[in-house]
Amino acid sequence: MQGAVLYGPRDVRFEERDDPKIIKPTDAVIRIAAACVCGSDLWPYRGIQPTAQPTPMGHEYCGTVQELGSAVKSIKRGQFVIGSFFASDNTCLNCQIGYQSSCQHRELVGGAQAPLLRVSLADGTLVATPDVPSEELVPSLLTLSDVMGTGWFAADAANVKPGSTVAVVGDGAVGLLGVLSAKQMGAERIIAMSRHRSRQKLACDFGATDIVTERGDEGVARIKELTNGIGADSVLECVGTQESMMQAISSTRPGGHVGYVGVPHRVELDGEKLFFSHVHLHGGPAPVRRFLPELVDLVWKRKINPGKVFDLSLPLGQVADAYRAMDERRAIKVLLHP
Amino acid sequence: MQGAVLYGPRDVRFEERDDPKIIKPTDAVIRIAAACVCGSDLWPYRGIQPTAQPTPMGHEYCGTVQELGSAVKSIKRGQFVIGSFFASDNTCLNCQIGYQSSCQHRELVGGAQAPLLRVSLADGTLVATPDVPSEELVPSLLTLSDVMGTGWFAADAANVKPGSTVAVVGDGAVGLLGVLSAKQMGAERIIAMSRHRSRQKLACDFGATDIVTERGDEGVARIKELTNGIGADSVLECVGTQESMMQAISSTRPGGHVGYVGVPHRVELDGEKLFFSHVHLHGGPAPVRRFLPELVDLVWKRKINPGKVFDLSLPLGQVADAYRAMDERRAIKVLLHP
Repeated sequence: MQGAVLYGPRDVRFEERDDPKIIKPTDAVIRIAAACVCGSDLWPYRGIQPTAQPTPMGHEYCGTVQELGSAVKSIKRGQFVIGSFFASDNTCLNCQIGYQSSCQHRELVGGAQAPLLRVSLADGTLVATPDVPSEELVPSLLTLSDVMGTGWFAADAANVKPGSTVAVVGDGAVGLLGVLSAKQMGAERIIAMSRHRSRQKLACDFGATDIVTERGDEGVARIKELTNGIGADSVLECVGTQESMMQAISSTRPGGHVGYVGVPHRVELDGEKLFFSHVHLHGGPAPVRRFLPELVDLVWKRKINPGKVFDLSLPLGQVADAYRAMDERRAIKVLLHP
Repeated sequence: MQGAVLYGPRDVRFEERDDPKIIKPTDAVIRIAAACVCGSDLWPYRGIQPTAQPTPMGHEYCGTVQELGSAVKSIKRGQFVIGSFFASDNTCLNCQIGYQSSCQHRELVGGAQAPLLRVSLADGTLVATPDVPSEELVPSLLTLSDVMGTGWFAADAANVKPGSTVAVVGDGAVGLLGVLSAKQMGAERIIAMSRHRSRQKLACDFGATDIVTERGDEGVARIKELTNGIGADSVLECVGTQESMMQAISSTRPGGHVGYVGVPHRVELDGEKLFFSHVHLHGGPAPVRRFLPELVDLVWKRKINPGKVFDLSLPLGQVADAYRAMDERRAIKVLLHP
């Protein structure tokens, strides 16, 4: 088969790779229904995170079970399944408490920008849909593998409740789906921070009530103006830079909650500032597996349509164009057809 | 009157000061029943925090209302009252939500190591006891002004619930009262980290079930051994150094909670480490006012005896000896009689 491999900064190749096989009896191999590029793929693509060796790319996936290891019990061949970017056994102490992305046996999934994918710990990791979905549901189901699950976790970690005032830092796919999640959780006011027209529009489609275009201290001042001078109840941090983290913390009211899901790159939090901010801070790699059953149900019943974040579709063979479009922010998120 | 004034590192003087007076109509002047030295007084005493000018010391207080400003309505002359180290109006948006130490009109209280003290925003700040207390209750009531309220907040911020496994970093008065708080909130297992015999003993009196003497990485390893390899549900950070913060974060299970109340001094949190730790982080200056009614009730009914942290009593005139005893860790906490 042919799949995407990253060689170094801005060097993604679509090239021949070995077909994935069952290695352990707990593995599954699935035929990818649709793949995509993640905002976090851009860190190594841009060289901010080094690429030590040619690396098969892609960790968001959904598709049909093609082959199963002998120990897999709950997943059947032919089922349509979705899983997280972290494979998890879903039975260890951390999984039991809902932190499957800290599973004691977790493994990173990689190489999903390809027609076939091996997923380890299949029983713990994969969630089957009620039936094989119609074509038009596939993009939304695909988002559940990461961006939608991550946006949902940001809102959950930020304690969004019915009636909450929420601010979202970051207008990438995760931030936009954070808006959708906050709306779904009953937030009354959702302030999206964005200066891009197409992203502002999608944020409003997803439920944003206000748009703030300012950043940094000015952005914080705008949020305070909109929130009686004290800050938002819940702030979703969906970027992972020093500026975005501080913007999120400073935009939150004392006693409020920051949910942060942007993988931090060179972020240092000043202890004293954090202390006097009086915020709750929670985040990390989203335990997508915890949310999958509920989110599959919401998509299946057409209550949410997170697939709208895909504003460009390309054949898998043009994966390098997909990276370029996202790197240059010409596309919010690119869907790839194998 | 004579009171304690800090001139610089290790230079506390007991000297003549002006009697406090009503300055604003919302003020009260109270006659101090007992005063004490706080762990946080040791930061400027040790010169780690600079002293720009001679500073009247002491921010923990309880006593009898002697004089009232014309606008004070709920507090009466002759009442026995307790207040927090932050005066608060108890009506602003931050106060309403229980974060009185982030009150929009907060003022630091200072100069309580003296016979008389002015407290601003008296209606919002002071809580009266049901009656004038008997002498033996005064030490416990005094702790509610800061250390007990702060230990309680640490446990509250760390989400201690019935059945929780709790670890406490720091064996100062706040840490020890964090143990008592966790016990009162129903924790099943409470691991106190201490290498001092007298503090270990008091921790056990207050409800600690385990003592860990190791620190840093070894301390973390011990906590993990005691908690099925994953870490404690709740960790109370009651020191405020880089080492203690990292020890607290690393001792917490994924999805667990760190409550931090030690004022951070030169603490920088690595964003990536925090992210992958998956902990909840909450803390700050304790909103003591929120807890005062409940804690007064618990002391009044003899359900808790936090006054046991005072292991040395001195006349107020010997305040310099009190600082020395605490600086050298000869005393956990010193009570001062005016």
